[in-house]
Amino acid sequence: MNATPSETLTFAHQLADAARAAILPYFRAHSGIENKASVGFDPVTLADKAAETAMRDLIRAHRPDDSIIGEEFDDYEGTSGWTWVLDPIDGTRAFISGTTTWGVLIGARYNDKPSVGIMDQPFADERWAACPDRAFWSRGRARVPLMTRKNVALDEALVSTTDPFLFQGDQFERFMALRAATRLTRYGLDCTAYSLLAHGQIDLVVENDLKDVDIAALIPIIEVAGGIVTDWQGRHNPKGGNIIAAGCPALHAKALAMMVG
Amino acid sequence: MNATPSETLTFAHQLADAARAAILPYFRAHSGIENKASVGFDPVTLADKAAETAMRDLIRAHRPDDSIIGEEFDDYEGTSGWTWVLDPIDGTRAFISGTTTWGVLIGARYNDKPSVGIMDQPFADERWAACPDRAFWSRGRARVPLMTRKNVALDEALVSTTDPFLFQGDQFERFMALRAATRLTRYGLDCTAYSLLAHGQIDLVVENDLKDVDIAALIPIIEVAGGIVTDWQGRHNPKGGNIIAAGCPALHAKALAMMVG
Repeated sequence: MNATPSETLTFAHQLADAARAAILPYFRAHSGIENKASVGFDPVTLADKAAETAMRDLIRAHRPDDSIIGEEFDDYEGTSGWTWVLDPIDGTRAFISGTTTWGVLIGARYNDKPSVGIMDQPFADERWAACPDRAFWSRGRARVPLMTRKNVALDEALVSTTDPFLFQGDQFERFMALRAATRLTRYGLDCTAYSLLAHGQIDLVVENDLKDVDIAALIPIIEVAGGIVTDWQGRHNPKGGNIIAAGCPALHAKALAMMVG
Repeated sequence: MNATPSETLTFAHQLADAARAAILPYFRAHSGIENKASVGFDPVTLADKAAETAMRDLIRAHRPDDSIIGEEFDDYEGTSGWTWVLDPIDGTRAFISGTTTWGVLIGARYNDKPSVGIMDQPFADERWAACPDRAFWSRGRARVPLMTRKNVALDEALVSTTDPFLFQGDQFERFMALRAATRLTRYGLDCTAYSLLAHGQIDLVVENDLKDVDIAALIPIIEVAGGIVTDWQGRHNPKGGNIIAAGCPALHAKALAMMVG
């Protein structure tokens, strides 16, 4: 019998714990070191590879028939119906800069449908997690159910995107109009933006050119918390591309119309 | 006899502890609450006022002759030569969005010269602190001396600013040129950008229209860590205005020339 989503989430927490242990020694590892001593030392790449290796080793040992899609190494095709989608460090520019808005993304799809997701912030000890019947944030022993903010007017909405200059031409003009129509804009939050949307803190995330590993883990977290995430054609379960996420369908529809209507 | 800078830093840590306790109940206080239940509840303003009140009460009780400049209440003119410069929550947009890049800023000038500074991040439990003979980051029992990164070429530099669209006209064009000439840009970090500069993680911070309370506490942290912070005329000890901070003088000169040369 195949693993249930709940069992799969329990196992995903073990993967997140392993990734944490692998990554933390590299975070801010430059601090207090003269620049010349750090030549050739690329902590984010070392951390990325160490974390993905740690997670893949656990999957191979405990769930050898699951498929794996990861950012750092080749895909593995299994037979169980479960596919792990791993981004060991989402937000490498944040990591390099020493901010704590990067995260470990661990998603699991069953027969191609997003089912389980974790976003873990190792340094701050924050974790957002979901399977079909529950979504929660945890930190140490603290645990809060995730719930998006609803019924937010466009001019009250808090918006996030990676970098406004990633939008070109018509996309840039449309994003600037959305920015002007909303309450405030935050940049460069990567996976933290989607997690805080599930948390009821941010209302809209609009981004282009994402990869499958950038979004797979976040879809269950957003949806089980009451939010909606689609591509810019309004299709659910996007595997990357242009993404729009909102705390509720009405706001999603308004923002989508401004970006592509 | 007047308090020494070292004694003043010790007391500043008590102020930071009090601000933490006052603010934390309000951070992400909306989470899990229906939007309609939060009407009229403005957590960041409540937190701001509670924290500044807590700090002013301690100053009044223990150092009644010190002057106080604060963001939320009227200035107080004392006689000791020491002036506290307080921003209970620097980065209110970050606070509102639920990210942890805001901070409590506590500066102390002696006879108008920046001497002591603390930047505290209550949720992540991170603190950057300096007096003239030491600058360090601490978290729980962990403690690391602060040291800026030196000898960084312009095209290797990590740059931060609040929001590129706060620059207008010529300033915007110049900032975009600086952005293009450097390695990567981070936005919206407020006081965290300057703290990570002192930490050797970020190399340049360029901002306009700051207030005295936004920068006073950060000047000692940056300078004792080996960095340089001036206004856009190159003057030291700015009381707000247009600010440029760098990990070393050579990079500061290059970036300043690009912004105003």
